[in-house]
Amino acid sequence: MTQSRDFGAVEIPEIGIGMLGYAFMGKAHSNAFRKIAYMTWPPPLVPRLVAVAGRDAEAVAAAAHRYGYERSTTDWRELVSDPEIGLFDNGGPNNLHAEPTIAAAEAGKHVVCEKPLGRTADESYEIWRRVAAAGVKHLCAFNYRFVPAVRLAREMIEAGELGEIRHFRGRYLQDWGDDPSLDTWRFHPDEAGSGALGDLGAHVVDLAHFLVGDVASVSAVVRAFLPGRQVDDAIEAAVEFAGGPVGTIEATRLALGRRNSLQWEINGSKASLGFDMERLNELQVFRADGDRARGFKTVLVSEADHPFWEHWWPPGHIIGWGETFVHELHHLLTAIAENGDVAPYGATFEDGYRAAEVCDAIVRSGESGRREAIGYRIL
Amino acid sequence: MTQSRDFGAVEIPEIGIGMLGYAFMGKAHSNAFRKIAYMTWPPPLVPRLVAVAGRDAEAVAAAAHRYGYERSTTDWRELVSDPEIGLFDNGGPNNLHAEPTIAAAEAGKHVVCEKPLGRTADESYEIWRRVAAAGVKHLCAFNYRFVPAVRLAREMIEAGELGEIRHFRGRYLQDWGDDPSLDTWRFHPDEAGSGALGDLGAHVVDLAHFLVGDVASVSAVVRAFLPGRQVDDAIEAAVEFAGGPVGTIEATRLALGRRNSLQWEINGSKASLGFDMERLNELQVFRADGDRARGFKTVLVSEADHPFWEHWWPPGHIIGWGETFVHELHHLLTAIAENGDVAPYGATFEDGYRAAEVCDAIVRSGESGRREAIGYRIL
Amino acid sequence: MTQSRDFGAVEIPEIGIGMLGYAFMGKAHSNAFRKIAYMTWPPPLVPRLVAVAGRDAEAVAAAAHRYGYERSTTDWRELVSDPEIGLFDNGGPNNLHAEPTIAAAEAGKHVVCEKPLGRTADESYEIWRRVAAAGVKHLCAFNYRFVPAVRLAREMIEAGELGEIRHFRGRYLQDWGDDPSLDTWRFHPDEAGSGALGDLGAHVVDLAHFLVGDVASVSAVVRAFLPGRQVDDAIEAAVEFAGGPVGTIEATRLALGRRNSLQWEINGSKASLGFDMERLNELQVFRADGDRARGFKTVLVSEADHPFWEHWWPPGHIIGWGETFVHELHHLLTAIAENGDVAPYGATFEDGYRAAEVCDAIVRSGESGRREAIGYRIL
Amino acid sequence: MTQSRDFGAVEIPEIGIGMLGYAFMGKAHSNAFRKIAYMTWPPPLVPRLVAVAGRDAEAVAAAAHRYGYERSTTDWRELVSDPEIGLFDNGGPNNLHAEPTIAAAEAGKHVVCEKPLGRTADESYEIWRRVAAAGVKHLCAFNYRFVPAVRLAREMIEAGELGEIRHFRGRYLQDWGDDPSLDTWRFHPDEAGSGALGDLGAHVVDLAHFLVGDVASVSAVVRAFLPGRQVDDAIEAAVEFAGGPVGTIEATRLALGRRNSLQWEINGSKASLGFDMERLNELQVFRADGDRARGFKTVLVSEADHPFWEHWWPPGHIIGWGETFVHELHHLLTAIAENGDVAPYGATFEDGYRAAEVCDAIVRSGESGRREAIGYRIL
Repeated sequence: MTQSRDFGAVEIPEIGIGMLGYAFMGKAHSNAFRKIAYMTWPPPLVPRLVAVAGRDAEAVAAAAHRYGYERSTTDWRELVSDPEIGLFDNGGPNNLHAEPTIAAAEAGKHVVCEKPLGRTADESYEIWRRVAAAGVKHLCAFNYRFVPAVRLAREMIEAGELGEIRHFRGRYLQDWGDDPSLDTWRFHPDEAGSGALGDLGAHVVDLAHFLVGDVASVSAVVRAFLPGRQVDDAIEAAVEFAGGPVGTIEATRLALGRRNSLQWEINGSKASLGFDMERLNELQVFRADGDRARGFKTVLVSEADHPFWEHWWPPGHIIGWGETFVHELHHLLTAIAENGDVAPYGATFEDGYRAAEVCDAIVRSGESGRREAIGYRIL
Repeated sequence: MTQSRDFGAVEIPEIGIGMLGYAFMGKAHSNAFRKIAYMTWPPPLVPRLVAVAGRDAEAVAAAAHRYGYERSTTDWRELVSDPEIGLFDNGGPNNLHAEPTIAAAEAGKHVVCEKPLGRTADESYEIWRRVAAAGVKHLCAFNYRFVPAVRLAREMIEAGELGEIRHFRGRYLQDWGDDPSLDTWRFHPDEAGSGALGDLGAHVVDLAHFLVGDVASVSAVVRAFLPGRQVDDAIEAAVEFAGGPVGTIEATRLALGRRNSLQWEINGSKASLGFDMERLNELQVFRADGDRARGFKTVLVSEADHPFWEHWWPPGHIIGWGETFVHELHHLLTAIAENGDVAPYGATFEDGYRAAEVCDAIVRSGESGRREAIGYRIL
Repeated sequence: MTQSRDFGAVEIPEIGIGMLGYAFMGKAHSNAFRKIAYMTWPPPLVPRLVAVAGRDAEAVAAAAHRYGYERSTTDWRELVSDPEIGLFDNGGPNNLHAEPTIAAAEAGKHVVCEKPLGRTADESYEIWRRVAAAGVKHLCAFNYRFVPAVRLAREMIEAGELGEIRHFRGRYLQDWGDDPSLDTWRFHPDEAGSGALGDLGAHVVDLAHFLVGDVASVSAVVRAFLPGRQVDDAIEAAVEFAGGPVGTIEATRLALGRRNSLQWEINGSKASLGFDMERLNELQVFRADGDRARGFKTVLVSEADHPFWEHWWPPGHIIGWGETFVHELHHLLTAIAENGDVAPYGATFEDGYRAAEVCDAIVRSGESGRREAIGYRIL
Repeated sequence: MTQSRDFGAVEIPEIGIGMLGYAFMGKAHSNAFRKIAYMTWPPPLVPRLVAVAGRDAEAVAAAAHRYGYERSTTDWRELVSDPEIGLFDNGGPNNLHAEPTIAAAEAGKHVVCEKPLGRTADESYEIWRRVAAAGVKHLCAFNYRFVPAVRLAREMIEAGELGEIRHFRGRYLQDWGDDPSLDTWRFHPDEAGSGALGDLGAHVVDLAHFLVGDVASVSAVVRAFLPGRQVDDAIEAAVEFAGGPVGTIEATRLALGRRNSLQWEINGSKASLGFDMERLNELQVFRADGDRARGFKTVLVSEADHPFWEHWWPPGHIIGWGETFVHELHHLLTAIAENGDVAPYGATFEDGYRAAEVCDAIVRSGESGRREAIGYRIL
């Protein structure tokens, strides 16, 4: 972080990136770091892709070539000890979240970690506690907070435009799980922690928290459908929020025809909002404004005054799923550059931990058959 | 039922209708009886509107004039004792379902009763038991079974086109309940039994049963939002079905912007289906058929070979909500004329009772905080 | 029209209906007359179904039985001479529009005639001229003016809510024409006059006129696709409106997958509107009102203060295509009862004639390859 | 082009990029060149951003910094004479298309030029003729050919899945033109050539050609609405295609509420397709396949076997408008690398010229009021 680049009059400092993982999330994060340097202008910091770590030496070397990392390694500890790395990005499987992330933070590096933060609330709490104690910036990669439509929803809610909220109904529907021959770390309890719950449900839980507030209780069913499947394929929960709203949280990998459909609807006393990730540029907005022509608007969230849109194109020229990481990591780099707060838009490791508490409660409720109240620890 | 009308070569017997209630459901059922006589051709029986009963003498007389009933009364017992009435139609408030319906059946009249059948499972069971013992035809007016798109869904499921079903997600969303000044029998526990649960949730429960099968357990939250509201405004439930599917059942009168939105989605291993009552002519259909161009179809259920469509118009000339009653009562009249079975498309009073068991379990679960298993009594 | 029915305190006079035709339009109009008597309350006049005429004695007798006409005939002149008939409804093929309609009017009967009024502008003008001279009420059955969403659009435009209108894009898409084995009077030039143009295009032309104003010129292509097809299968036109707006008018029977899709969009300087007959309960509304959450609303036109909705159900309980005739004929009966004006919502025979001028100009332009200006005759 | 980069085992040659323009299109193209290097893998050539040219020295220098060009200049001739530049990318205003593009090609550089190729058919023909004579690769940046849904449509049509095509209805709707205070080169006839026609209509014309074939005639209206506006705000045309299809082509900057809505529908005898650029990841597909559940599918074009999708994410993780340029320029670089053909997916300068012939004919028809047949010159 001692170098910088000359951007005309301004000199923007660089920040060295160390990435753990090079597959799906590695690609998404690497792309984002590269785009931040010129699509967000001026960038808060210029990402310098220092090193990438992974298990397969040849594959990780190829990934380094592809995405432009200066070097690659099969030992994540090399990232932790690398003085040129200022930000450690953990895109590894869930069982590799805790140790490397904590180590990097304790080595003084800022950290971003993919969701779910840990495989349990306890593990997540421990990650949060030790990273927070290290005094670095931390972000749990709930990238859907950084969809423009989701942020616009948040801003409308913060401004009181929904009035009193009564309902949140959220579900994350995919359908790739219906293949008995498929094997991935996502089906192994030790590596993944849980199935659809941590993979998909955690996103719904985090958006519920981001938009409506803390989940206070869950009454849940947890189900594995495929023979031999060792993690859940689906979870279903009736939920209560602190302060009164009620609703549902669902996640499944067996909703045939739904490829990446994170849907939610929020009903307030003044307005309702709806969303579907498969149409991520759109927000459904109903306002009780007395207009005789009442109805849900399909808002194409792409106007100059819409969230994140200063980085992109003229109105109506929509963006893709990959851009959510640009927004997210831009947010983190801004917090680092300004030594400012990652909150309120987070998501911080505290948010990662809080989501894990809800996920744990869903598991408990699935087993106990009882409504499980949720307590949140603080530091 | 001694008269008949000459329809060219055929003579179609008449059936005398006695109607209890003349407001919302009275209008809907009366309209259906009148249309059956010429829109379904030839009609199974020709409805003759003999008498209508209601509490307000002047209003019920006016309703008789309007809809063409030969006489009106303020005493429903006159309907029960009227020999010219062959079918007693109960569209009164929920606390008037049991006694008149049982009395009419025991007087030998076929009976149709609005949903929910009774205010509790016990009351519903008693209605079913005594009416069944009377040996008459009985139909619980779950009219949404008679939406062409819903029937098409049922036929596809029966034909095995969905494969193994994994999920049912159903919710009935309205928004008229958010008015503290509003008063109606639907807000009085003694008259209504429950709030959104019996009014809206019962429809979802019945469709869940109709399309997927028996609900085996519910884990529910029941909530009244408005100060002083004595019935539930909303219910949220995670549910398990016999045989494995899991999902959610929801009902609310506080989903701002949703006027009559009974939505459901079913995911199977071969196909998925979706529906919204606000677009009742459409069925969403996804098939895993190997087509490279995969996606949900918006099926306009209005083809010559679609359910109920023999009564209506050329394809694409959509029908309205009111026609569901035409289909439903046509179904009942056919069963009466042929002395045949109301099942499998029902809904019989057994279906009304079974829905009540699920609703009771939702109430119990809301109170106990436990997953409540559901047992169904038989006769 | 000497009888009346007692509706409680009010006595509503009857009007005798004589119907020519009993197939598609005969069914639609007969259903409407029957429903007007109780769904619109109090009805302006009580329709009494006196007689129906058609070519096939047996079929027309059966239709009389079905729809409740007191008698049937194979000679439409009997309707014209029948003193009990106060309203002559012409639902016959296009070549039977002129003579019977004029004869009925000259016999003092009010008249409604299906569209297109005549097969040409000249024939249409003659019908209009002679019927107007007879001094009776006349309505050309452009029933789509009586869709609630269309009427709401008209009211918004009349109130200036759209500002200056720039565009009208309208198209009526069906797909049943792609069958070489199919034969119907609609394919015979002498009976139908034209193909998709008069059958479907005339509706678009009328709505263009109803919503935006007179079409001033057309630049058109007219095309028959199927071998041996003697009428047009499709027309395409670029159009100019008096006062400035420009747009397109299209009609086809070969738009595979579109069953009854009359779509239009209007763009003004303050608002835009959109519509599709396959979702006839919905109006798309965009307002330039400064809301940061801008977008097209899907307005479910079913509120208590929406057009025609006083006759129907609670909000969100949608109506069907058949109800447009209830609204249309109720409008005509009101004009007759009050001896008032059928305009501005019409459509009168003048509207029928004006549409025919545009259709003629489309034919001329198709042949000449020139932009054809349209002149409208007056009486 | 003498350097190369080591991508593991493979060495991928570099190609030097010289960009004219740094605003909207400059940003879009620069982003695409940067992403090609790692999102398409292995890239056909590695773009090296050598130099960018523009009128404002300070602004172009800033743009060079931002997007990573090695140098900047205010004289495009420096790009033409720069031996390190192998590909000249012209994103300047329309009046700067001809001279620099021809000069670059004649200097031996491959060329890509934004649409419309020239301001008239004559100018476009001259550009095509001289560039083709130079023997370099040329691409006219009709980037919407490179939307996955559009390419999928093309592949379906090529495979005969639509049968005989009857209709193409295309329109490009935007609404930013309704501002009298706005000034841009796009409103100046000398710089832009035309208004909505060349800016938006050219895209529709090209897609019509790409998907259905040559436009044979146009019958058009051309209109400027705003006082003092010197270019067209809107065009409307009825069109005939070679071989029989008919339809419409429309373009406007005054369709309030439509931000970037390039919509088209194609009706064939076996299938119909529909598209809207505001939902660019979706293709509407109707197949006449005998399925009782018939209807338009909403195909989310994001499967592994869908066009261009090998570069991106798992299914359902949608892409944005900006990625169309990645696909387009990847296509061009592939043609350069393999010395292969840019056709059939083009668009070549011949395609640019052909679109200009249609645009010219629309202008002529607007003035003459006649159907204008279109002749296409060849080299």
